[in-house]
Amino acid sequence: MDLILLVPLAGIVGLIFVGILSRWVIKQDPGTPRMQEIASFIQQGANAFLRREFQTIALFIVVIAVLLLIFLEWQIAFGFVMGAVFSLLAIFIGMNVATRANVRTSSAARTSAGRALTIAFRGGSVMGLSIVSLNMLGILLLMWLFGVGPDDPEAVSLLVGFGFGASLSALFAQLGGGIFTKAADIGADLVGKVEAGIPEDDPRNPAVIADLVGDNVGDCAGRGADLFESGADNVITTMIVAASPIFFSKYGWVGVLFPLVARAIGVLATLVGVFLVRGRDEGNPTMAVNTGFLGTALTCLVLFYGVARWMMHDLGLFYAQILGLVGAIATVLVVQYYTGAHGRPVRETARYAQSGPALGILTGFSYGMESTVWAKYILGLVILLSWLMGGGGLEGIYYIAAATMGIKEMKGIIMAGDTFGPIADNSAGISQMAGLSGETRKAGDALDAVGNVTKALAKGYAMSCATMGSLVILFAYLFEIARLQGIQLTKLNDFWVNITNPANICGLFFGIATPYLFSALTLRSVNDGAFKMVEEVRRQFREIPGLMEGKATPDYARCVDITTANALRKMLAPTLISMVIPIVVGFILGPWALAAYLVGVKASSAALSKALFNTGGTLDNAKKLIEEGHFGGKGTETHAASVIGDTFGDPLKDTAGPSLHILVKLQNIMSITLLPLFIQYGLNLFQ
Amino acid sequence: MDLILLVPLAGIVGLIFVGILSRWVIKQDPGTPRMQEIASFIQQGANAFLRREFQTIALFIVVIAVLLLIFLEWQIAFGFVMGAVFSLLAIFIGMNVATRANVRTSSAARTSAGRALTIAFRGGSVMGLSIVSLNMLGILLLMWLFGVGPDDPEAVSLLVGFGFGASLSALFAQLGGGIFTKAADIGADLVGKVEAGIPEDDPRNPAVIADLVGDNVGDCAGRGADLFESGADNVITTMIVAASPIFFSKYGWVGVLFPLVARAIGVLATLVGVFLVRGRDEGNPTMAVNTGFLGTALTCLVLFYGVARWMMHDLGLFYAQILGLVGAIATVLVVQYYTGAHGRPVRETARYAQSGPALGILTGFSYGMESTVWAKYILGLVILLSWLMGGGGLEGIYYIAAATMGIKEMKGIIMAGDTFGPIADNSAGISQMAGLSGETRKAGDALDAVGNVTKALAKGYAMSCATMGSLVILFAYLFEIARLQGIQLTKLNDFWVNITNPANICGLFFGIATPYLFSALTLRSVNDGAFKMVEEVRRQFREIPGLMEGKATPDYARCVDITTANALRKMLAPTLISMVIPIVVGFILGPWALAAYLVGVKASSAALSKALFNTGGTLDNAKKLIEEGHFGGKGTETHAASVIGDTFGDPLKDTAGPSLHILVKLQNIMSITLLPLFIQYGLNLFQ
Repeated sequence: MDLILLVPLAGIVGLIFVGILSRWVIKQDPGTPRMQEIASFIQQGANAFLRREFQTIALFIVVIAVLLLIFLEWQIAFGFVMGAVFSLLAIFIGMNVATRANVRTSSAARTSAGRALTIAFRGGSVMGLSIVSLNMLGILLLMWLFGVGPDDPEAVSLLVGFGFGASLSALFAQLGGGIFTKAADIGADLVGKVEAGIPEDDPRNPAVIADLVGDNVGDCAGRGADLFESGADNVITTMIVAASPIFFSKYGWVGVLFPLVARAIGVLATLVGVFLVRGRDEGNPTMAVNTGFLGTALTCLVLFYGVARWMMHDLGLFYAQILGLVGAIATVLVVQYYTGAHGRPVRETARYAQSGPALGILTGFSYGMESTVWAKYILGLVILLSWLMGGGGLEGIYYIAAATMGIKEMKGIIMAGDTFGPIADNSAGISQMAGLSGETRKAGDALDAVGNVTKALAKGYAMSCATMGSLVILFAYLFEIARLQGIQLTKLNDFWVNITNPANICGLFFGIATPYLFSALTLRSVNDGAFKMVEEVRRQFREIPGLMEGKATPDYARCVDITTANALRKMLAPTLISMVIPIVVGFILGPWALAAYLVGVKASSAALSKALFNTGGTLDNAKKLIEEGHFGGKGTETHAASVIGDTFGDPLKDTAGPSLHILVKLQNIMSITLLPLFIQYGLNLFQ
Repeated sequence: MDLILLVPLAGIVGLIFVGILSRWVIKQDPGTPRMQEIASFIQQGANAFLRREFQTIALFIVVIAVLLLIFLEWQIAFGFVMGAVFSLLAIFIGMNVATRANVRTSSAARTSAGRALTIAFRGGSVMGLSIVSLNMLGILLLMWLFGVGPDDPEAVSLLVGFGFGASLSALFAQLGGGIFTKAADIGADLVGKVEAGIPEDDPRNPAVIADLVGDNVGDCAGRGADLFESGADNVITTMIVAASPIFFSKYGWVGVLFPLVARAIGVLATLVGVFLVRGRDEGNPTMAVNTGFLGTALTCLVLFYGVARWMMHDLGLFYAQILGLVGAIATVLVVQYYTGAHGRPVRETARYAQSGPALGILTGFSYGMESTVWAKYILGLVILLSWLMGGGGLEGIYYIAAATMGIKEMKGIIMAGDTFGPIADNSAGISQMAGLSGETRKAGDALDAVGNVTKALAKGYAMSCATMGSLVILFAYLFEIARLQGIQLTKLNDFWVNITNPANICGLFFGIATPYLFSALTLRSVNDGAFKMVEEVRRQFREIPGLMEGKATPDYARCVDITTANALRKMLAPTLISMVIPIVVGFILGPWALAAYLVGVKASSAALSKALFNTGGTLDNAKKLIEEGHFGGKGTETHAASVIGDTFGDPLKDTAGPSLHILVKLQNIMSITLLPLFIQYGLNLFQ
């Protein structure tokens, strides 16, 4: 039982290292005045965006908190606010260090490629550590406040507010950031690269700062909020499952604490990994990062073995965790095959681009759709096997949760690697804009390439997390129905989500359709922003004399402003829709049909998001392959075709795809939160 | 009970009119020798394709029939062969008349636009009538052969072989035809229109005949086989539902005959509609076609009222049918809004094309995804309401089947309108190639425009049919499990497809993924064919001297050959995959998980196919809008961007989208057919 002390300990140690690493990063040399000036533009833009975004979110948080207070317990409302605040705090810390690490990475790259890598990775790990630590501490704090303990295990249900708050702010952050980053990116590319023929990150391009800001608010803050919420949701829902009579009688209170302890292990293992990543001036930078990942994974395995054996007294949970980890690695490999620069899909996509953009896009799109199948099969098998390892039936569900924990252990280090991506990307941009030497830029580009790998890895990983995690959330939802309706669960078929009931079929249909609507709205938001950006950049080129010759400075701030306004306005509709639909289904079709709805959303989102992701990834790397000199290389018709393909694929990969994960989790956790209302006030016509 | 005589009567009358209309069409003037020559090229190409396609199908049919004979009853094997043969016979008749009607339509258009319309529509109605008549007669013949009657109502299960055979040949026909038509179309356009800058249907383009052949083997034969199978599946599965004890005790034998009688009504109503369509030289051609549709709908309503009242003694079934019809019309309106030439989606897609192809495609794609939601909502409501009208519970299922029948009544006339499309399209092509006067071509283009409307209508309609129809098939599957396992059904929850069972979740996951794999393979097949075609056309332009100047004839036959070979080879993999997956799921995860799989396939296909369809339709009409002179009109960058969008969208709309419908139905009906084997030999580990 003393292992539980690990939890606050790991959280506090994690936060201490957030402080240490931040100070270490900030102490590094920020480079020439020109570099500092560019970096401050990015910082200001990113902070301005985050401030305005937080204001919008705050408004929603307040309104919803009041409603929760009126209709549900005060703990739910309180937890909701805290979930949102902790989530925003974590990404605020993480992004602020990231926007300082970028220029310091550039500066270090002038003398030592190895040091540049270390700075970028440590900068990224601030995000990773602050997310996992704050996540854990927040939940712990609430447990203490609400008096959740072994005497009343089912009181863990009061924690769902924290997950709901984290989910809502994550959806806003990912949507807002995702719309911002791609609108800026496409806008910058369409006029800069295609029309004006100037290179990427050229200081003459008015949209270039907006583009660099986008890396931070989208890839960095957006993904951070995503992982914060998936962590919170996963811990809380696993606790709900563990607190249900069937598992509480088997494992007792340690079963409920298990997910928290597992998370604490993750924090410690992440620390080990972070300090293993040390760049060397000679040697492969990918290797340095991989050492960190490997170190974390091994530390996790060893500690998890101990927990399964001496705390849970059930070694099977350890094997389930290994299974989850293997499944996660397998899905990452699938992503790498389909979007990797030298696999068949990317090569074929580049080859077909020789017949014009349409066939290229079709090829990329078809491989993206195909990739979804293998990921589904792998995760389907992980679910099935872990369930069987747990003896099947109702009892096997705890093993599915354990497998999910296995996947989630790596969250901190993966997020560090993911944030490393935009830092390296920004750093390359700053070097280019500040006109640093070719040598420095080459070192920066090498880092950027590593960043692309870690970003792709993070996406594959996030997919597995989301699919498995949302399954656990679903079970938590079902256990909650049972608890609230006083149903004695003894076997799996005591859950009445019969898919042959037309009300449930309806729920499933609606659920499967929702991700399509959501993606459609998201993509059009990017389109709108990009269109406005194109017009603004064209205007500046036209109206500011001497801009093309490099004699005048473009109005960077205006581009940032336009994109910010668009992103913040356009993130509202998808968010509202994703909140309204489950509420309508819950009240009219009832809680069981809502379960079918949630299954539909989950399954459809998982499939669609993978297809969108990998279509974007394949098209992106097909372009890069051509730029490396294959199929004619840069400047050919084939290259132009691949650029069109990449522009099409970018918002699929960076806006629509990632937002779908959060959609699923938000709808799930919100449904659990509001479940008492559906049961009490719902029409319940159809069961 | 005497109403049952309607069935053979309507079938025979239908076939007699197939003969009369065919003779009438063939007696029309086939035009100048040049026109006849072109038409004979098309005819030869289409027939050669069909012959080779039939050979491939025959091989499969024989092998599978032998397997069925070994493992199941002889009736299943016999019905299987008959289903395949009748389906191929119907599309053979229909396509042969269509490839004669095209040139006669061109010829008539020289003097009378009205007469041209009448010829084209009557040519199309041969397909519509031969499908519905042969369908009905085939089933009737088998019932008589197998001795299915009131004494042993559950023997209707022996009819599933017919549906399986029809489904398999439909999948081949739709896939082969769909791959052929789009590969030829894209190939012809990419080199002809884009590279060489010659107009559409120019006789100098070596791929032009292949393109015109494609209209026949894809739009005409492919869609025909689709509707033949969906008719067969629907009648048979509704009969299985009606023969289950719960409904047999309520409605008796007439309940089993009900779907056949409804189909007979459809045949008679189609005849009424066909003869109402009379083109006038002045006046709106769309109006003439609409008169036919309206006539059919009204006739159906009146007769259906009679059947519900005096045969079934349950007027509620009539209201359910009206509900189904309203639902079908609503989904067609959704399609028209999203893909209609002057709605907001098409206009916006064209507007964004001003910023290049990527944003245009993104816009079209996003509207396509959005459209799927409304169709799902509408059909979800139809299911829910018709079920409630029938009193909910298990009994409400018969009403869902009645609503589905309501939708399906219009099949014949819709198919006539759909086949009218490629005839008009072909006719316009022939007029262009034969160098007919501008006046004639204008009349032809007007017909072509009407054809585009009827084709779009047929697609929206086919979607509703497929979604609703596959739901009935699902229930038939479940009733079959109950029958084979001796389960007494008294309430809906006696079906154990609990979606919280991980084995069922797995099945659902796999089901949701399958359409992605299938679409991916299909799209790449088109890509391959188009790529080969592009190379061949480039080669002919390069190697045949005087071709561009119009002094030499291109080698049309070689283009047809290349596309035929590609289509026939590429239709195999998707077909095999779609047969293997449910068999594996059925044997390993068991029949209930297979039900979850089928629900997943159905729901996912319905969503994905609508998205693919409407994306293609929106992009197509955005191009047309620009060609009408909006946003700069022909020859601008915007137009070029929209052409790229159209090329991307075409295979989504005409190959991947429509094949998905058949995938769903084939997997469903095959699962019913093989169900006894799954129950007997399956592992059954997981329930």
